[in-house]
Amino acid sequence: MKWPAHGANPHYLTESMNLPPVQYDFSVNVNPLGPPSWLKEKWSEFYPFVMDYPDPHNERLIKTIAERERIPKEQVLVGNGASELLMLIGNYFSGKRVLIVEPTFSEYRTIAQTHGCQVETVFLLEEEGWQLPVGRIAEQMTGVDLVIVCNPNNPTGVHYAESEIVPLLQSCERMETHLVIDEAFYDFVEYEPSLIQHVKSYSKLIVLRSLTKMYAVPGLRIGYAAAGQQFVEELSHFQPTWSVNGLAQVIAERCVQDDAFRIETRRYIQSEKDRLFPALRDLGFTVTDSEVNYYLLGGYPCLSETLLSFLLENRIAVRHTYNFPGLDGENIRLCIYKKEANDRLLELLRRWTL
Amino acid sequence: MKWPAHGANPHYLTESMNLPPVQYDFSVNVNPLGPPSWLKEKWSEFYPFVMDYPDPHNERLIKTIAERERIPKEQVLVGNGASELLMLIGNYFSGKRVLIVEPTFSEYRTIAQTHGCQVETVFLLEEEGWQLPVGRIAEQMTGVDLVIVCNPNNPTGVHYAESEIVPLLQSCERMETHLVIDEAFYDFVEYEPSLIQHVKSYSKLIVLRSLTKMYAVPGLRIGYAAAGQQFVEELSHFQPTWSVNGLAQVIAERCVQDDAFRIETRRYIQSEKDRLFPALRDLGFTVTDSEVNYYLLGGYPCLSETLLSFLLENRIAVRHTYNFPGLDGENIRLCIYKKEANDRLLELLRRWTL
Repeated sequence: MKWPAHGANPHYLTESMNLPPVQYDFSVNVNPLGPPSWLKEKWSEFYPFVMDYPDPHNERLIKTIAERERIPKEQVLVGNGASELLMLIGNYFSGKRVLIVEPTFSEYRTIAQTHGCQVETVFLLEEEGWQLPVGRIAEQMTGVDLVIVCNPNNPTGVHYAESEIVPLLQSCERMETHLVIDEAFYDFVEYEPSLIQHVKSYSKLIVLRSLTKMYAVPGLRIGYAAAGQQFVEELSHFQPTWSVNGLAQVIAERCVQDDAFRIETRRYIQSEKDRLFPALRDLGFTVTDSEVNYYLLGGYPCLSETLLSFLLENRIAVRHTYNFPGLDGENIRLCIYKKEANDRLLELLRRWTL
Repeated sequence: MKWPAHGANPHYLTESMNLPPVQYDFSVNVNPLGPPSWLKEKWSEFYPFVMDYPDPHNERLIKTIAERERIPKEQVLVGNGASELLMLIGNYFSGKRVLIVEPTFSEYRTIAQTHGCQVETVFLLEEEGWQLPVGRIAEQMTGVDLVIVCNPNNPTGVHYAESEIVPLLQSCERMETHLVIDEAFYDFVEYEPSLIQHVKSYSKLIVLRSLTKMYAVPGLRIGYAAAGQQFVEELSHFQPTWSVNGLAQVIAERCVQDDAFRIETRRYIQSEKDRLFPALRDLGFTVTDSEVNYYLLGGYPCLSETLLSFLLENRIAVRHTYNFPGLDGENIRLCIYKKEANDRLLELLRRWTL
């Protein structure tokens, strides 16, 4: 069976297998609470933004982000989702040597390959708790132009401490190697630990952010990057004019200022994890030490092969790991979902282990 | 005085000149009637599309477009506005030789230069009624990789007949030169004359479309390209995942099917032109033979120099032509706007000529 590459849009899968539509999609790791409530309440106020050209320079949004992050606005680039920023980075490093810390978000590899990069790999290890292997990265770094690290990592959910990354950042700076830290999920971690302040002193650092996950707005397409001023400027030349749509601009501006929503989300996720993780371990599963809203489930040999179909027949979609190098189907990725969905999942996993 | 490069967002200009905000912006050439009325009426129905990932393959929208245009769906690529498609084309032709028929939309040149292309020019001439100089293009075409033609042309509003373009298309095919026909405004012309059917037989043809102008949705970002299947596939590899946002996908699908709206728009534009153009000519202005919703105004020496500021002081923004090679400020571009705005413009131009 050929499973599709991406998590989202499980209808492609169920339709091809003649299965009923999915009831709960655990493969999408956006905020289970949905968008902030004001988005639906004030929806009519956003209508006028379809009729005007977006600000081609994203001025107001960049100003808001820069002020909140306490970095100069010249070091911020807003994009049509983090995917656009990744594509721009791919373009910048066309044909160069790229080192990816796997298993991780599959787009890094796809985009590097699309741009003719020579892709090298350092593997995270389960026996190291999936922690960042700074030593092994340093050993392999000579001549590499770009290192890509996802933090917290997707699909493990593991967060690397600042004290682990800063030495890597220093090596990168010394060796003139760029370092991407993709913080798409950083705001799910308690106290939102970020590397972003370091863009002021490390010219090789590129921090990526997505608004999709925390604010549950994957349909809007909005993300940003923080990096050295010159790097930001060079990347922006290859960005289409009006690349960020008008609704995304104005909604993003409100999202990033909604601190209460992020706190409420983290509180909910934590309470569900406190309930779910012990129950899963009792069933004999392993669960990664996740600090975010998704985790890797393992512990049974050839887990994916039987569990994926069983869950899909019961109208639950999950994220397989066949195309995550270093996992190859031994685990599945699940998000922390709505209460009733989590209950249903537990019930099915209990049945499966019987 | 340094005028900004783009038409939209005149507040950049008025703020820097300490002028009051613009009342009527004649520099934006989107549909003066605004979006189709169902967009506002059904706005709440579109809310759910912010919460789901867009279909990364734009399947439904591509199917709708392909059926309406009677071309295979494999020959359609949907983009985050026509600007994204232009950037992808620029990327494909990086470092190559590009021939642009000027004066025209300034983005072609900007994007070609960004991608290190060698840009060559053929000029349209006022004494030829700004018609396509097929002979002069053919003379200059040896060794050129890409020819870019805007039809109807921006900023002249002149539409080139199919019988003029097909010989150019044949030369391109013979000489292995790609030909972009940007039809961003084609549906403002009576009977919507398009080259799109020819993508089935000419592998070098690329037809571009924008939904921004006719449906007055510049904030949404949506356009598409029709071209040879292999070309479409190669371009799509460099397109960010989920590049087209979820709202754009679903709204575009309804827009392209709204024939009545396009007919109503053309009727309105024509009636305003029938009223405006003779009045402008009576005042001593020249007006291009426009078949769309904008035109070039000329006829007075150094027109831009004095008229731009006069209009801006009277809270009217227009499009200067300083950065259109081949015009250099001798004309201004104006759109056909709402009735009361057109009246105000006429009144001011009358005052100016006194």
